[in-house]
Amino acid sequence: MAKIHPLSGFPEWLPQQRIVELEIQDEIRRRFELYGFAPLETRSVEPLSVLVAKGETDKEIYVVDRLAAGTASPERDADRRLGLHYDLTVPFARYVVQHYNELDFPFKRYQIQRGWRGERPQEGRYREFVQADIDVIDRDRLALSFDAEMVRLLHETLAALPIPPVTIAINNRKITEGYLRGLDVADVIPAMRILDKLDKIGADGVRRMLDAEALTGAQVSAALELVTIAPGGREVIGRVEELGVRHALLDDGLAELAFVMDELSTLPAGAAVANMAIVRGFDYYTGSVYEGSMRGHEDLGAVCSGGRYENLAAGARVRLPGVGVSIGVSRIVGRLFARDLVPTPRKTPTEVLVLVPEERLRWRAQEVTHALRERGIPTEMWHEPSTLNKQLRYADNKGIPYAWLPGRGDDEGDLVRDMVSGDQGAGDPSAWLPATDRATARSRARVRAEERG
Amino acid sequence: MAKIHPLSGFPEWLPQQRIVELEIQDEIRRRFELYGFAPLETRSVEPLSVLVAKGETDKEIYVVDRLAAGTASPERDADRRLGLHYDLTVPFARYVVQHYNELDFPFKRYQIQRGWRGERPQEGRYREFVQADIDVIDRDRLALSFDAEMVRLLHETLAALPIPPVTIAINNRKITEGYLRGLDVADVIPAMRILDKLDKIGADGVRRMLDAEALTGAQVSAALELVTIAPGGREVIGRVEELGVRHALLDDGLAELAFVMDELSTLPAGAAVANMAIVRGFDYYTGSVYEGSMRGHEDLGAVCSGGRYENLAAGARVRLPGVGVSIGVSRIVGRLFARDLVPTPRKTPTEVLVLVPEERLRWRAQEVTHALRERGIPTEMWHEPSTLNKQLRYADNKGIPYAWLPGRGDDEGDLVRDMVSGDQGAGDPSAWLPATDRATARSRARVRAEERG
Repeated sequence: MAKIHPLSGFPEWLPQQRIVELEIQDEIRRRFELYGFAPLETRSVEPLSVLVAKGETDKEIYVVDRLAAGTASPERDADRRLGLHYDLTVPFARYVVQHYNELDFPFKRYQIQRGWRGERPQEGRYREFVQADIDVIDRDRLALSFDAEMVRLLHETLAALPIPPVTIAINNRKITEGYLRGLDVADVIPAMRILDKLDKIGADGVRRMLDAEALTGAQVSAALELVTIAPGGREVIGRVEELGVRHALLDDGLAELAFVMDELSTLPAGAAVANMAIVRGFDYYTGSVYEGSMRGHEDLGAVCSGGRYENLAAGARVRLPGVGVSIGVSRIVGRLFARDLVPTPRKTPTEVLVLVPEERLRWRAQEVTHALRERGIPTEMWHEPSTLNKQLRYADNKGIPYAWLPGRGDDEGDLVRDMVSGDQGAGDPSAWLPATDRATARSRARVRAEERG
Repeated sequence: MAKIHPLSGFPEWLPQQRIVELEIQDEIRRRFELYGFAPLETRSVEPLSVLVAKGETDKEIYVVDRLAAGTASPERDADRRLGLHYDLTVPFARYVVQHYNELDFPFKRYQIQRGWRGERPQEGRYREFVQADIDVIDRDRLALSFDAEMVRLLHETLAALPIPPVTIAINNRKITEGYLRGLDVADVIPAMRILDKLDKIGADGVRRMLDAEALTGAQVSAALELVTIAPGGREVIGRVEELGVRHALLDDGLAELAFVMDELSTLPAGAAVANMAIVRGFDYYTGSVYEGSMRGHEDLGAVCSGGRYENLAAGARVRLPGVGVSIGVSRIVGRLFARDLVPTPRKTPTEVLVLVPEERLRWRAQEVTHALRERGIPTEMWHEPSTLNKQLRYADNKGIPYAWLPGRGDDEGDLVRDMVSGDQGAGDPSAWLPATDRATARSRARVRAEERG
């Protein structure tokens, strides 16, 4: 084996961490499916021409070449060269154009997959990462109710995870753009990109940059008044109106935001807030925009984000408006593990280690193992003659919650030992169940289904 | 959007196929966890030096370079260049060396992940593919019982999938090697590689190639006698002994195979057979070897394979013997879809579409949707005012099994329509359950668990 290189930006977890990551991914998937989003995976590579079409990110793309094909030459056709995708939207757009005739609309899909970016790694920013995306697209027109559904689903999903609460900030790009147009700002797109930097560079920074864009002092002050409105509920809309700027696009945006906030009025207070400072840098977004941050971990940046767009893919036969959000799974779990925010007591899914106290009980151990597995309980059987102490130490080291001792109970029956409390009791492999706080979420549902089903 | 390129060798599935693939992956994972294998994922890239160390496959490696880093130069240190992994064993070996102090032995892990090879694509051979691997490794010595456990788990897993039955052929490389040594063959390794080609080039081809290796006519005939023994149960061992060749290594191999076959005697007939023609090309394997093929689809090649090895990674502080198998998930599902071997009626996980028969019933539709989701039943609600026909057509197109009609039953109650049979009946969202043959496996377990608490 050659030298071992930990690679910066390519996170890997220990089994006890992977168990937690997998529980999180399972819960995300369960919630996405509960809302009727269909599973999808796309290939990891796209032609470079597809990847660079979106611009901006080309410096971060990983190019893929066959080693046997020799040195990559820049002259080779960009259409034939391949790169690893850096998000799940670009491959999704390509997929929809490619399979347009085989899909039914509105098309709702989720994708939980890896992406790659050659960025400088830092906490929360990886070169290889897992994202969980949902999008709904329709032909020509997409109902506004989906803009609210996105936030509801996002909230329910994130609230079900073992992570700090997430506040989802909502805005509508029509508000920002309409407001700037109402102020007679000549070039609104660069101004919006600057306003999006408020939380990074502060009001003074934004003011300086807008000055440089040749906005008048009055325009700059008015723009700052908008984005510094205190985030909150539906009342934020009234505050925008009080600023007195008028424009048809602004009215549209406020009406859409009002609809979304009304639809979300049953969410817990603070779960979703209207926030005029959320602009999103991507020109791609044309309506609702979202950004979520974990309370107490705002320094990590957005743990989820998304918005509405006019057209997923210019190559399709019709316009495909959509709305989508993306959860940064690696960013979230990376923080959980770096700050020890979640317990990781289990190194294995095994719930029961069946011991072999002496060789003559091996057949009984085998029977117990088989019976427990038949009932959906993850079970290992000790594999060789050893002292009981060695066998118990293995269970203890791996965080296996129960040890099963065949023939060690009354009348040659079995004993089950709770490895945490040390308590022992009689065990019958055809009826015994782990305590719910000892089993994994996945196995709990399974055991119950098999028990009653 | 740039031009759309279907990429040969990079399979992608439609949502209805992805649902089936995901059910297969879930079942594989469930079985692996039932036996106590811990989940693990490794990064997708390794230093080229790690990937080429195993030899043979370097022509198939995909190299990864940052686009911004300019043209890759062959002079760059192979230690610093990265490639995509082509299997899950090489990254696993590197992972174990890297995290040796943090792991507990015997270490059992599973990995369901993508791999990449720049091979010429053909049916069953992809450039990007999903594999499901299990390995168990221990320090210094690994109990032989794991060699049997691999086959039992593999059989139970594959038998639970919606695929044709798989026959797992078992051999032991000590038998082949010991037998050749007993024949005084000077250079056994190349001879074993040739014997491994029996099913591809036939007995005549093997004879010609062994002749070219300077084996005597008697040695060649005796070798062919071994590998052409009819596959079967424990009696195969007697047939090998009847050939009259003697060698200590051969005896070891036969004893190990006898132990494994005895441990597997409770499997259904034909599930696992001793087969002397299974040699495996990798010199890496040193004991038990396995290869599984789908009955009626032998032309596809092995759908699973593996074996025992002396040492996972030379870089570790101690010897790490192990045994592992790999299931070729993409190869299996690719054949299922290419030959229409599995029904794919559902384009979405949604089990119920809640209709909005008229606008005044929207609130009721929302209540029903919420109640069903709360109970773990994947539900969509129709999103805009439309005719009932249009709403029902959507459910029909996507294969959603139930349509829920709020306020259309007796006394303004709800009606539920079975979209397959057309039957309608009263529905109560706090108690109604989908028929088990209409729900997905995943949701069935969920509903039952939530129902019975």
